[in-house]
Amino acid sequence: MTKPSEIKLLGTPASPFANRVQFVLNLKSIEYEFIHENLASKSELLLTSNPVYTKVPVLFHGNKTPIPESLIIIEYLDEIEPDVHRILPMDPSHRAENRFWANYIDTKFFPLYEELRMTPNKEGKEAIKKQIIEQSQLLEDTFVKFSNGKLYFGGDDVGYLDVVLGCFLAWTKFVEKHNDMKVFDEVRTPKLVEWVKRIWSHEAFKINVPSNETLISFYMMLQIYKPPRAA
Amino acid sequence: MTKPSEIKLLGTPASPFANRVQFVLNLKSIEYEFIHENLASKSELLLTSNPVYTKVPVLFHGNKTPIPESLIIIEYLDEIEPDVHRILPMDPSHRAENRFWANYIDTKFFPLYEELRMTPNKEGKEAIKKQIIEQSQLLEDTFVKFSNGKLYFGGDDVGYLDVVLGCFLAWTKFVEKHNDMKVFDEVRTPKLVEWVKRIWSHEAFKINVPSNETLISFYMMLQIYKPPRAA
Repeated sequence: MTKPSEIKLLGTPASPFANRVQFVLNLKSIEYEFIHENLASKSELLLTSNPVYTKVPVLFHGNKTPIPESLIIIEYLDEIEPDVHRILPMDPSHRAENRFWANYIDTKFFPLYEELRMTPNKEGKEAIKKQIIEQSQLLEDTFVKFSNGKLYFGGDDVGYLDVVLGCFLAWTKFVEKHNDMKVFDEVRTPKLVEWVKRIWSHEAFKINVPSNETLISFYMMLQIYKPPRAA
Repeated sequence: MTKPSEIKLLGTPASPFANRVQFVLNLKSIEYEFIHENLASKSELLLTSNPVYTKVPVLFHGNKTPIPESLIIIEYLDEIEPDVHRILPMDPSHRAENRFWANYIDTKFFPLYEELRMTPNKEGKEAIKKQIIEQSQLLEDTFVKFSNGKLYFGGDDVGYLDVVLGCFLAWTKFVEKHNDMKVFDEVRTPKLVEWVKRIWSHEAFKINVPSNETLISFYMMLQIYKPPRAA
């Protein structure tokens, strides 16, 4: 077992990527210290531990080299604690499929939320919303395939893709409210709607879900530091 | 051992990402069938096996779900043949570091070559060249750290990052010639210059290095299908 306090996580409560790591730390019952980062005025610790990207999260494990990038961190946690709530399947082919969809979610699906914020005019926003809807459909198909009639992407319990997609749910609700849209709905994506309820009430997940106030203040900071493109 | 002919690789000889997979297949002495893809007129096989990205490489292993994305494929190959020339280190912390730099090379370093091609004016090109030079320096530092006085990123033998960066060397030479620049040179990056010579003469590597003619014809296709931005 990993010793308590050996693990520190540099993050911000509104970061879905930091939330993702917290979700796995909770699932594996790994104690950790959360170090708050202020992205509006980056700390020396962030600049020295992740000089290439200067982004959170960064995981510190004793004296080892700090690990940035949430997908790399959660796979690391799965490797150091393989016997407690393993998140990646054992089968290499299933692992490859999981990695493929995680990469898709991070590079195609979630960036559309930011694109929606950055796009100034109504017409442009509608086009982005359409893409989000299309992708939600693809995620529904992926859920149906992976869950195979069970509760989670991971089957009977939370797995890698549940963590990867789950961490975006607080922002999904925020985006839905701000843009008068439904990302997941009962007609188009009925299985994901059920899955959202399940993840939302999962003990390991809900204790780190950022509050609406946290999201609003992060959103306001984004609007100042990286304002939407001019119309 | 993987049975011969169970493995098929859909690719094109000029693709560094397909070359990367070939490098690992060679290192592990896995027999495979190479299926040529014509990216100017994509095959039904590509469209159905990688509908999300419609890009090569795609690996087929028997009746399993086809695997796209070169980093995912090479990790898969390392998992199904762990005892023959393992490319990722056993230590989880070192694995995480390897994954971090692979991601860096694919998302920051190599895309600059394409950016150089797409940028129309001389001034813009000089700015990109400067970035390439800066990044080559960072890669030299990474090599020094990882190789720890030995021959390769992987130590005594070719490892994961040797494969990941090595596959871009044919294109590196092409870019150097076309743009009158040195990406790696003896003063700035002396260790990488030695490493390039070593990889370049490695048996598992050199049998799939694309010829200059192959690169030129691929480059000409790119110029037609995705021409540089207007000045």
